[in-house]
Amino acid sequence: MTKQKLLIAKIGGNIVGDTEVLATFLADFSRIEGPKILIHGGGKSATQLATTMGVETQMVNGRRITSAASLDIVVMTYAGLLNKTIVAKLQKNNCNALGLTGADGNVIVAKKRPVSKIDYGFVGDVTKVNATIISSLITQGITPVFCAVTHDANGQLLNTNADTIASEVAIAMSEDYEVSLFYCFELKGVLKDINDKDSVVEDINTATYAQLKEAGIIADGMLPKLENCFNALQRNVSTVHIANADFIKDNQTKHTTLRL
Amino acid sequence: MTKQKLLIAKIGGNIVGDTEVLATFLADFSRIEGPKILIHGGGKSATQLATTMGVETQMVNGRRITSAASLDIVVMTYAGLLNKTIVAKLQKNNCNALGLTGADGNVIVAKKRPVSKIDYGFVGDVTKVNATIISSLITQGITPVFCAVTHDANGQLLNTNADTIASEVAIAMSEDYEVSLFYCFELKGVLKDINDKDSVVEDINTATYAQLKEAGIIADGMLPKLENCFNALQRNVSTVHIANADFIKDNQTKHTTLRL
Repeated sequence: MTKQKLLIAKIGGNIVGDTEVLATFLADFSRIEGPKILIHGGGKSATQLATTMGVETQMVNGRRITSAASLDIVVMTYAGLLNKTIVAKLQKNNCNALGLTGADGNVIVAKKRPVSKIDYGFVGDVTKVNATIISSLITQGITPVFCAVTHDANGQLLNTNADTIASEVAIAMSEDYEVSLFYCFELKGVLKDINDKDSVVEDINTATYAQLKEAGIIADGMLPKLENCFNALQRNVSTVHIANADFIKDNQTKHTTLRL
Repeated sequence: MTKQKLLIAKIGGNIVGDTEVLATFLADFSRIEGPKILIHGGGKSATQLATTMGVETQMVNGRRITSAASLDIVVMTYAGLLNKTIVAKLQKNNCNALGLTGADGNVIVAKKRPVSKIDYGFVGDVTKVNATIISSLITQGITPVFCAVTHDANGQLLNTNADTIASEVAIAMSEDYEVSLFYCFELKGVLKDINDKDSVVEDINTATYAQLKEAGIIADGMLPKLENCFNALQRNVSTVHIANADFIKDNQTKHTTLRL
């Protein structure tokens, strides 16, 4: 039996934090027919709120050290303001969205990251995605919208990387669906030259990935993103792309396609 | 055919804002068997956040005047921090909770309150509750947890009185369920003498309500609460109680029962 197609798009903080870019993306996303899921970050907005509230933001290798005060800000921003603003705007565009954290319906369970060299605080690594409720929502014509918050099933909310949530949800849904996963951000894809926005590496496979890493072309924050991409492909996600937010509209813009 | 029973409890800001009282309530609530829905306020916490952020809180007759900045705070607090903290704690107690605003799944649609003598700002009056999605969640063993935020289906989130959300959800669910509605707060019920916490008026019907209003015993914030109670009873909600948060545990404590 052929599996039904499911599109999963992840948008990062630079899209979510820009009202106009976000509005365009959500209008384009709403027009996509068939089952779909949206996952969003929002680090930029959380940092702004932290500044207003006088809470210090501490980052290590692009990851937020999440103190108790910082977690409150993350939950208020991601699960509150951003998630509900996105849901309301999708509803306006006739997309029946429903916002979720991992705690809602126990959909995504995570484990607080163990303290080794760095204590990340209230940061969670995904241990389980309960696909049943997600499938049931999709079957009812609902578009689940996930923010980057999970829980440990023991009463603790956890800040969780949105790229990882996207790949883990994509992997879990691949059992019943043919999943296409899109990481959408402000660039066109993985760039050969960071100063040339058009120098997109259009295809990356595990072999060329090793070379690009070796050459230092893929570095820093791009590394965990690519790890999430290959993890998804290795665990039965059909296609994975890294692309500009525009790409969702016409699938035409130059972008990066990942292959095993 | 006998309808299945459904319990709907609303908890106010004084319960939500007190960590210990909230934890006890949520443990008691989790132990209740059968389908249930929780609705929560959180005005106290929103006011605290507003103070931290330097946003002025303006109240008229106990109602928050909701400016754009104030709406952001309401959404962050109600839909973000409070709703997700409650959901995570219910999950810990093996209650499969799922948090919702009215925008999620287009479950509660409201209309921005027209400006007459007072401009309440981004405050919404409920126009429609879509019971289908709520029923579908309940059928899957999920406990919906509503916060006091709705939307206008045109992209605008709206601050909406939690008592009203409780009565409107109860009314909509009464078509398919035998609904018991509990307004839980810090007092034991409607009091004859505000200085005597035990002076509970145990029964109020439409006739005695008129007398109590006339005598000034029911006044201020209690008036819209009572209006919501009678509105629910008139529109097929089976039972309505005003009680202390404790009441949910054993149904024993003295409380106020409303009758037509």
